[in-house]
Amino acid sequence: MVVALLTDFGMQDYYVAAMKGVILSIDTNANIVDITHKIPPQDVATASFILKACYKDFPRGTIFVCVVDPGVGSDRRALVIETDSYKFVAPDNGLLDGVLSESVDFRAFSITNRKYMRRDVSNTFHGRDIFAPVGGHLSKGVPPSAFGEPVALDIEDISKSGSPTDAKVIHIDHFGNLITDIRNEELPNDAVLEIDGRLITKVYDFYAQARVGELFLIKGSSGLVEISLRDGSAQAELGIERGSGLCVKHKVTL
Amino acid sequence: MVVALLTDFGMQDYYVAAMKGVILSIDTNANIVDITHKIPPQDVATASFILKACYKDFPRGTIFVCVVDPGVGSDRRALVIETDSYKFVAPDNGLLDGVLSESVDFRAFSITNRKYMRRDVSNTFHGRDIFAPVGGHLSKGVPPSAFGEPVALDIEDISKSGSPTDAKVIHIDHFGNLITDIRNEELPNDAVLEIDGRLITKVYDFYAQARVGELFLIKGSSGLVEISLRDGSAQAELGIERGSGLCVKHKVTL
Amino acid sequence: MVVALLTDFGMQDYYVAAMKGVILSIDTNANIVDITHKIPPQDVATASFILKACYKDFPRGTIFVCVVDPGVGSDRRALVIETDSYKFVAPDNGLLDGVLSESVDFRAFSITNRKYMRRDVSNTFHGRDIFAPVGGHLSKGVPPSAFGEPVALDIEDISKSGSPTDAKVIHIDHFGNLITDIRNEELPNDAVLEIDGRLITKVYDFYAQARVGELFLIKGSSGLVEISLRDGSAQAELGIERGSGLCVKHKVTL
Repeated sequence: MVVALLTDFGMQDYYVAAMKGVILSIDTNANIVDITHKIPPQDVATASFILKACYKDFPRGTIFVCVVDPGVGSDRRALVIETDSYKFVAPDNGLLDGVLSESVDFRAFSITNRKYMRRDVSNTFHGRDIFAPVGGHLSKGVPPSAFGEPVALDIEDISKSGSPTDAKVIHIDHFGNLITDIRNEELPNDAVLEIDGRLITKVYDFYAQARVGELFLIKGSSGLVEISLRDGSAQAELGIERGSGLCVKHKVTL
Repeated sequence: MVVALLTDFGMQDYYVAAMKGVILSIDTNANIVDITHKIPPQDVATASFILKACYKDFPRGTIFVCVVDPGVGSDRRALVIETDSYKFVAPDNGLLDGVLSESVDFRAFSITNRKYMRRDVSNTFHGRDIFAPVGGHLSKGVPPSAFGEPVALDIEDISKSGSPTDAKVIHIDHFGNLITDIRNEELPNDAVLEIDGRLITKVYDFYAQARVGELFLIKGSSGLVEISLRDGSAQAELGIERGSGLCVKHKVTL
Repeated sequence: MVVALLTDFGMQDYYVAAMKGVILSIDTNANIVDITHKIPPQDVATASFILKACYKDFPRGTIFVCVVDPGVGSDRRALVIETDSYKFVAPDNGLLDGVLSESVDFRAFSITNRKYMRRDVSNTFHGRDIFAPVGGHLSKGVPPSAFGEPVALDIEDISKSGSPTDAKVIHIDHFGNLITDIRNEELPNDAVLEIDGRLITKVYDFYAQARVGELFLIKGSSGLVEISLRDGSAQAELGIERGSGLCVKHKVTL
C-alpha cells in the first residue's frame, strides 16, 4: 500500500530514515511517499492544514502516518483512524481534526497493543517506535481494530474556515503566498481585502494576469483564498506573519 | 514506469505531495523519483540546466514531469514531448529547450484533452491538475498523441555553451561551486580564468589536488567547467552571483 | 532490494537525481530510500553518526550507498563492505567506522573492476560514476567480491562514546537538541551536566515533563544522552556548536 509520511522531523537527521526502515522491515512492498517533513517544529495546526489540502489526491487505501508530536512520551493517546477511503496514524492532538471534520464516518482506535510496536519503545521517538510500525502493519493488512480499543473523539476543526469579515492567514507557502481561511466560494467578485492597514483591490484568475510586483487576491488550489504577488513573495512585501488578521469587504461598502 | 519530478515547489507545502498522490491514483505502479523541488521560484533557466545535466542517467522510457511555470493559468501551452528514449511533460516556456536541443528527433503535443486532466482544473496549480495526471497516464501507457494536437516548437537552447572569452556562471551548486557555460573540452590546459577582476590560474583534475582555501578550475561532471574552492565555497570566496561574466585566456596570452 | 542513500549533495542540484537514475538504469526494481542528503559538506563524522543511528532499522539485505567524499578523484579507495545483515558502499575515509565497529564480522573489497562503473568516470562525481553503479549492481545480485580485491581495514570508531567526565556534543539535530557522546546507560539518575559554564540539573523521561523554556537532559532515541529545551532549541538557548566539551557529575559530588 501507499504509506504517506508527514512530520516535523526535517531532512537532515536520521529520524525520517529510521521510520522508513521500520516500515520496510515490516512490509517490503510498502510504497512510501513523503508529504513533507518540514512542518515547523511542534506546529500541529500547519500539519493539519497541509494534510487536509492534499490527502484526497492520494489513492483509496493510502495510509497516512503523521507525526507532529510535542507530547511524545506523555500519556497523550496514539491513534489509528479509518475512514471509508483512508487510514491515518497520528498522535491524539488535533492533527487529524481537519481531515475528520469532513469525513462522513470514521472509526478511531487507541494504539495500545505492544505486539505492533518496536521491541524497545523510547520516550522521545514514537515516530520510529510506534507510528511507523503501526503504519507498516496496516500496509501489511492488519485491521485497525487490532491495534487497540475503539475510542470516541471530540473533533474540533482547527483548520476550519473563518468568515470573510473575521479571517486570518493560516499558512504561508514556499512562494510567499499568504493562504487565508476564507473559502474560495465566499470571495465576492468585487472583494477588497484589508490587511495590516493595506487594501488589496484586485482579484485575478491566474498569476500572470497581475503586473510584476502587484499584490492581488486569487482563489487558491487548496480551496482557500490567497494573497499573492506576481513573481515575488507577498509575505516579504507585506511583512506579515501567519495568524495575522484580515477582513474582506465589498467594494461598494467602502 | 519511472516518473521523475522537477519543480520549484519547495519541500514544505502540499504541492509535491498532491502531484504524487494524483500520479499514484492513476498508476499505482508508477515509480516516482524526485529530481529536485528546490529550483528557485520561477527560474526556468536553472530548471533547464538541472534537467539537461541528469536526464540521460535515467532508464529509457522515463517520464519527466517538470513544473516551473510562471505562466500557469494563462494561455501558455502545456506540452507532452516524446524523444526516442524519454517522455517529457512541461509548460511551453523553454524549460525543455536544453534537452531538446540535443535530441535528434522528437514529437511534441499540446495538452488539450480534458479527459486526461483532473476533473477540476485550478488556475494556479496545473502541476496537480494537468501535468501530474498526464504523467500518470503516460506511465499507464497512454500514447503522447492522445493528449492533444501535434505542435511545432522553436527550440532555443537557453543553457547552451558560451565561448571561453565570453562566458558566464550559469549555476551555483550546493557546495558553492560555480558552474560556467564553458564546455570541458574547450578549456585549454594552460587556462587562466578572469572573473570579477581576479585571476584563477590553476586547473586541477580533482578536488583534493588543491590546497585548502585555494581557488581552481576543474572539468565538471555536467560536462562544463567549474570554479571550485578546496573544502569551501567558491561562491562565498568570490562573492559572485549567477550570471556573472568571465573570460578564459591562455597563460601565454597574458 | 532497498538501496538507501546518504550524501552531502544537498537537494537543489542534479547530483542525487543522477545517482538514482544510474541505479534504476541498472536495476529497475531497486527500492531507493533517502536517508539524508543534508550532511554538512565534507562532514564525514556527521555522516558516520547518522548512518550508525538508523541502519539497523532497515530490512536485512539493505544496500547503503554513502557518499561524503572530500577525496573524490584522488587515490583514496572506494569500498564495498558486506556484514551478515547489510551491504555498504562508500569511500574509504572512516564514514563506515561507526557501523563496522559494532559489526561482529565483515568482508571488505576495494572497488576496482571497471566493468561495474559508469563508462566515463569523472574525477569529481564518483557518487554517480562508481558508488551508484556499484549499488545498482549489488541490488541486481552481483556479489561484493566481484567488484575488486578483498582488503583489510583499520577501524577507528569516530563516533565512539566519550566518558561522562570528558564528553562532547557530536550532533545537533533539526530541533536544536544537542546529542552528546554519552551513552544513555552511563547517565546517573542524579546527573548534573556542565556545559559552557552552565549547569543542567534536570533529567526527564520525555519532553512534555519539562516546563516550556526549561533546559534538561534526556536519554535519546539514538542511545545517546541529549540536551533539550521544551518547545524550543537548546542550541539557540546555549549558543553551543558541535564539538563543544561538557562534563557530567553526580549531584552529590557538587
